[in-house]
Amino acid sequence: MRVSELAVETDISVATIKYYLRAGLLHEGRRTAPRQADYDAGHVSRLRLIRALLGPGGLSVAAAGKVLEQLDEPTESAHDLLGIAAHAAAALPKPSTSHPRADALLEKWGWSVDPEDHDARSRLEQALQGLEDAGFEPPEGFLEMYASAMREVAAREVEEVPQSSPAEALRYVMLGTVLVEPLLLALRRLAHQDASARIFARQASPWPNAERTPE
Amino acid sequence: MRVSELAVETDISVATIKYYLRAGLLHEGRRTAPRQADYDAGHVSRLRLIRALLGPGGLSVAAAGKVLEQLDEPTESAHDLLGIAAHAAAALPKPSTSHPRADALLEKWGWSVDPEDHDARSRLEQALQGLEDAGFEPPEGFLEMYASAMREVAAREVEEVPQSSPAEALRYVMLGTVLVEPLLLALRRLAHQDASARIFARQASPWPNAERTPE
Repeated sequence: MRVSELAVETDISVATIKYYLRAGLLHEGRRTAPRQADYDAGHVSRLRLIRALLGPGGLSVAAAGKVLEQLDEPTESAHDLLGIAAHAAAALPKPSTSHPRADALLEKWGWSVDPEDHDARSRLEQALQGLEDAGFEPPEGFLEMYASAMREVAAREVEEVPQSSPAEALRYVMLGTVLVEPLLLALRRLAHQDASARIFARQASPWPNAERTPE
Repeated sequence: MRVSELAVETDISVATIKYYLRAGLLHEGRRTAPRQADYDAGHVSRLRLIRALLGPGGLSVAAAGKVLEQLDEPTESAHDLLGIAAHAAAALPKPSTSHPRADALLEKWGWSVDPEDHDARSRLEQALQGLEDAGFEPPEGFLEMYASAMREVAAREVEEVPQSSPAEALRYVMLGTVLVEPLLLALRRLAHQDASARIFARQASPWPNAERTPE
């Protein structure tokens, strides 16, 4: 199909498709004339993947490029697949080698993390720093509650890593890391509404002593 | 203190502080001369909050402005606090009123969500669409596993909403929504490493039949 048909099929504009071609995210079509190329179903599914990484995945074009590069040429070694995935998907501005609070928590909880991988620990450090900067202290025991919820989720996820081939495993880990994040956050926001409805429905107002504005 | 001292105190450049002043995120200092103003501890803590929202919170300047506006002038009504928080913190490009998969799941799970609030359901719809676009199907039962983990977390969070005043509650809900998100994601990535170390440490390679590259 021509690029205009590819645009209709994927609902992505011709200009955007050409941008992905120039940025190397999408492979060139088969040249049929000096200014014309032929695209196939492979281009359609690649564009869907690009859109998923840039949209719900929340990656920059550069970060999406790294993820796609890894998916295209997966390492043969099974070693450190998770590390590669986490690095390639990283969008953190400046990973730091100093993350004292993160280190202290991980040691307290007895979590085994790669001492050479500073990215995930920097993210945790920045998140903790953000809470402190905002003067927001989670209630007693909440850090542990969050850690334990994520530990259960992650254990189930890692158990299901496909062991058929490194390429399959890498695809699962990278897309599972990047694309499941917006899913979890959306579910948490909806779960807030559900919990709020269940808990506050029993009371006329959660603040019985606060003056209410007439509706 | 002068703006240059405020910059040293907060480790934020004078140019950035002036940008926040112009954007209305930071309140003006007390004017002491035509081109000079005096800043106090209130400006320091406000700048820390701004930095937390823009950095770990991942908000745009416009979205941070909305959150701060709500925190500055909280609604008197306790009604729909969670909805206000979710909306103000929203960074979703185009919330849609059509989210059939999200609706179907919520109905199946029996979650009570605000029928007028399309933001969180649009997020869920986009996340599900992203998984499909990428050709990534979570293993059997995983959607329910994610939902149940987030439901437990959210129920604990909503139970702890401070009931002393609407302003306090709003602060807790808004900052808890925005600033806890990067915390959860960082913990999930670290938990992947921990689970991977525990599960794969028992095997020489998770892919016994795959050829390994020499290190």
